[in-house]
Amino acid sequence: MSIAISRRPVARTAVSLCIALYGIGTANAQTFSAVAPTPLQLKPAVDQAFAQMMASSAVTRLLDAVKADHERTIEDLKLLTEIEAPPFKEQKRAEAFLARMKALGLSDARIDTEGNVVGLRKGNGNGPKLLISAHLDTVFPAGTDVKVKQEGNKYSAPGISDDTRALTVLLSWLKVLNDNKVQTVGDLLFVGNTGEEELGNLRGIKRIFADHLDIDGMVGLEPAPDGTVLVLGTGSHRYEVTFKGPGGHSYGAFGQVPSAIHGMGRAIAKISEIQTPSVPKTTFTVGTVGGGTSVNTIAPDARMAVDIRSDAMAPLLETEKKVLAAIDEAVVEENKRWGVNTLGVSTRLIGDRPGGRTSPDQMIVEAATRANTAFGLKTVLAGASTDANVPMSLGIPAIIMGGGGKTGGFHALSEWIDLTDGWKGAQISLVTVLGLVGVQGVSEPLLVKRAPRTR
Amino acid sequence: MSIAISRRPVARTAVSLCIALYGIGTANAQTFSAVAPTPLQLKPAVDQAFAQMMASSAVTRLLDAVKADHERTIEDLKLLTEIEAPPFKEQKRAEAFLARMKALGLSDARIDTEGNVVGLRKGNGNGPKLLISAHLDTVFPAGTDVKVKQEGNKYSAPGISDDTRALTVLLSWLKVLNDNKVQTVGDLLFVGNTGEEELGNLRGIKRIFADHLDIDGMVGLEPAPDGTVLVLGTGSHRYEVTFKGPGGHSYGAFGQVPSAIHGMGRAIAKISEIQTPSVPKTTFTVGTVGGGTSVNTIAPDARMAVDIRSDAMAPLLETEKKVLAAIDEAVVEENKRWGVNTLGVSTRLIGDRPGGRTSPDQMIVEAATRANTAFGLKTVLAGASTDANVPMSLGIPAIIMGGGGKTGGFHALSEWIDLTDGWKGAQISLVTVLGLVGVQGVSEPLLVKRAPRTR
Repeated sequence: MSIAISRRPVARTAVSLCIALYGIGTANAQTFSAVAPTPLQLKPAVDQAFAQMMASSAVTRLLDAVKADHERTIEDLKLLTEIEAPPFKEQKRAEAFLARMKALGLSDARIDTEGNVVGLRKGNGNGPKLLISAHLDTVFPAGTDVKVKQEGNKYSAPGISDDTRALTVLLSWLKVLNDNKVQTVGDLLFVGNTGEEELGNLRGIKRIFADHLDIDGMVGLEPAPDGTVLVLGTGSHRYEVTFKGPGGHSYGAFGQVPSAIHGMGRAIAKISEIQTPSVPKTTFTVGTVGGGTSVNTIAPDARMAVDIRSDAMAPLLETEKKVLAAIDEAVVEENKRWGVNTLGVSTRLIGDRPGGRTSPDQMIVEAATRANTAFGLKTVLAGASTDANVPMSLGIPAIIMGGGGKTGGFHALSEWIDLTDGWKGAQISLVTVLGLVGVQGVSEPLLVKRAPRTR
Repeated sequence: MSIAISRRPVARTAVSLCIALYGIGTANAQTFSAVAPTPLQLKPAVDQAFAQMMASSAVTRLLDAVKADHERTIEDLKLLTEIEAPPFKEQKRAEAFLARMKALGLSDARIDTEGNVVGLRKGNGNGPKLLISAHLDTVFPAGTDVKVKQEGNKYSAPGISDDTRALTVLLSWLKVLNDNKVQTVGDLLFVGNTGEEELGNLRGIKRIFADHLDIDGMVGLEPAPDGTVLVLGTGSHRYEVTFKGPGGHSYGAFGQVPSAIHGMGRAIAKISEIQTPSVPKTTFTVGTVGGGTSVNTIAPDARMAVDIRSDAMAPLLETEKKVLAAIDEAVVEENKRWGVNTLGVSTRLIGDRPGGRTSPDQMIVEAATRANTAFGLKTVLAGASTDANVPMSLGIPAIIMGGGGKTGGFHALSEWIDLTDGWKGAQISLVTVLGLVGVQGVSEPLLVKRAPRTR
């Protein structure tokens, strides 16, 4: 997960704090800033469903079972955390997660072509299908020491909170639903997915949505404080751009050859003038540059990395189009300057995350808000780049919630989770999920069944 | 010395060859391409002086003495080469050279404030003052193995030809002039100077011309084949430019902070459109760039190295002015783009070599041409960046000649000199020098006495 930033000016200080926390892996717990106001008035159906659930002995028993299962989830957490899962190397952890899923009753669970662990817990028939997911991968390379260290209720290890805790919550839900024979109305698609982090570019969850055209919503679990609901998924496209020319002596070859650096400079100058909307917030930057051989050589090569982000897909693609056009125009101009055709450019997409947002008036957001209220928590609607970006970009209702515990130090070797009352987050997110798919004999599904997408 | 490049299209292949030879330190001997036609018709005074000298038994004796002294110069060559003289660390070699100069009769020789070894051999009174020089410094850092290796007449060691051979030729001239009691009409200012290479930026020879306002001409010695006369000194100014801003998250800080990379890109785009004259050839390039923190960070820093060269000072300075203006404008524009004032830039002059040329119709060029003819050699008028750039930029007649031997591999650890018939180059350049200052009882000085410059 990477944290998105509030668009509200008032939140600027908090934003900086978030980035700092995120970047340096401090011992302070992570927090999120609001990116949208929390809905105050909920739809009657939402209130009704949650009133019914919270009054139901079946649901109460189930939530008690989540708490009772808490200590056992910590054993799963140690087991899974200590199986390293670097980007593109999630297989071993996937196999362990699959084995646990099968043991807990999803006998037809399997690993798909992108390495995702996928198991369907069927509803009673005509309900919606909700994807519930956590990601298998961590940002840490192979060989990182992933041994879990414990100090009281605080557990430390790379990847332990982002996102291994969430994997164990999925397993716990599966166990308590089965132990308590809870029959949901809608289907629950349990997924431990690959490729959420960095260059994984959400490949796992993209595969899920490509293979399962009938998903009606998604609740993903990530390290987020109780009460936090992520509704904004900032999309990003990133490019590595390489300019290549013949190069030559700065004096001897002058006038005869183009400069890769001059070509790149022309491109950057054009990019720096691109206009983007502030809502949906859309941004761009040339983040890094390098190139050239020596001060007195007309540069034969230059390269830059470009980052384009947006809260919506249309302006992301529009801005990307402008960036790519600027690069092409720059090369034409630099060649024209010297009457040659020897400067070339290649662009490589190195980051590809779609973006979007789930409107606060969507049932899925109201359900999470109502679940928080039921547990005495205020809801903060926040943003980040997560697996939920994919359904958001497709217009499918999606949110990310926490799985319990206080967390910090993501993407740092000092990553930790404090599991004091950690069962609470697992209860809140579970009751949100149950509200969305409905519990047979207790409540109707809140999630709207959609017409299946077509390929 | 760094080799300049012919401006004549026909020489393009040869040019590339020169650069290649220069760059990779191959075993092939170095050659130069012509940058101007060799004068065909010489002034009568030139012919007369050389006819008189070549017919004079005093001069003949002197030239024989140069040949006879050849083996001894090789001992000086080994001695001086094996005293390392890295840029800005020429002192130890300077002291050894000073000691030799004093031993050979310039008892008032001394080391000046820039580390140059300076000794004056006076003429008989009212003649011109000719600077004859070779540089003490090499490009090689302290600790380089400078042990001389010999294979027949070929001697190899870093710095042995560029420019240690020339130092030994100056010493040999001093010895034979004194041994043979030759009285010149004009004064000979013997100089072993510092700071010719790279970041030395000609500091030694700049000091010489600042301290000695009455110098009327200069003959410098560098590794160049017999017959080669350097008349073009391409000037260069080099800048290191650093852009600095606050930086920030590519999404979170977008719109609030300028980008150091965008500012630099704007500058490069402007620089790439600068127009320069083709005669005097004037060039520019942004040779290297670097900057940024990560793809998703608005760059807090960016830096570039700019090379500006010209065969004449006026267009060099004009182009420099345009480059610096482009940089300033770019910073203003990038700040304006975001309504801030937080992007700054600093420029540092890292290379400062004045430029100019000595016209082929100058007495000093005709004298060298006539000397070559006297030895049966064709003259090639070539260019390079050498100590002679300084007098050329001041309008003082200056040339560079070879000191004898075939050479190659400059600035490479494989640098070598083949001293077969190496005495010949020392004879040709000495007779050029004598023609310029005149020999009492033999010839009148060809070099014109100038009004002393003022500070």
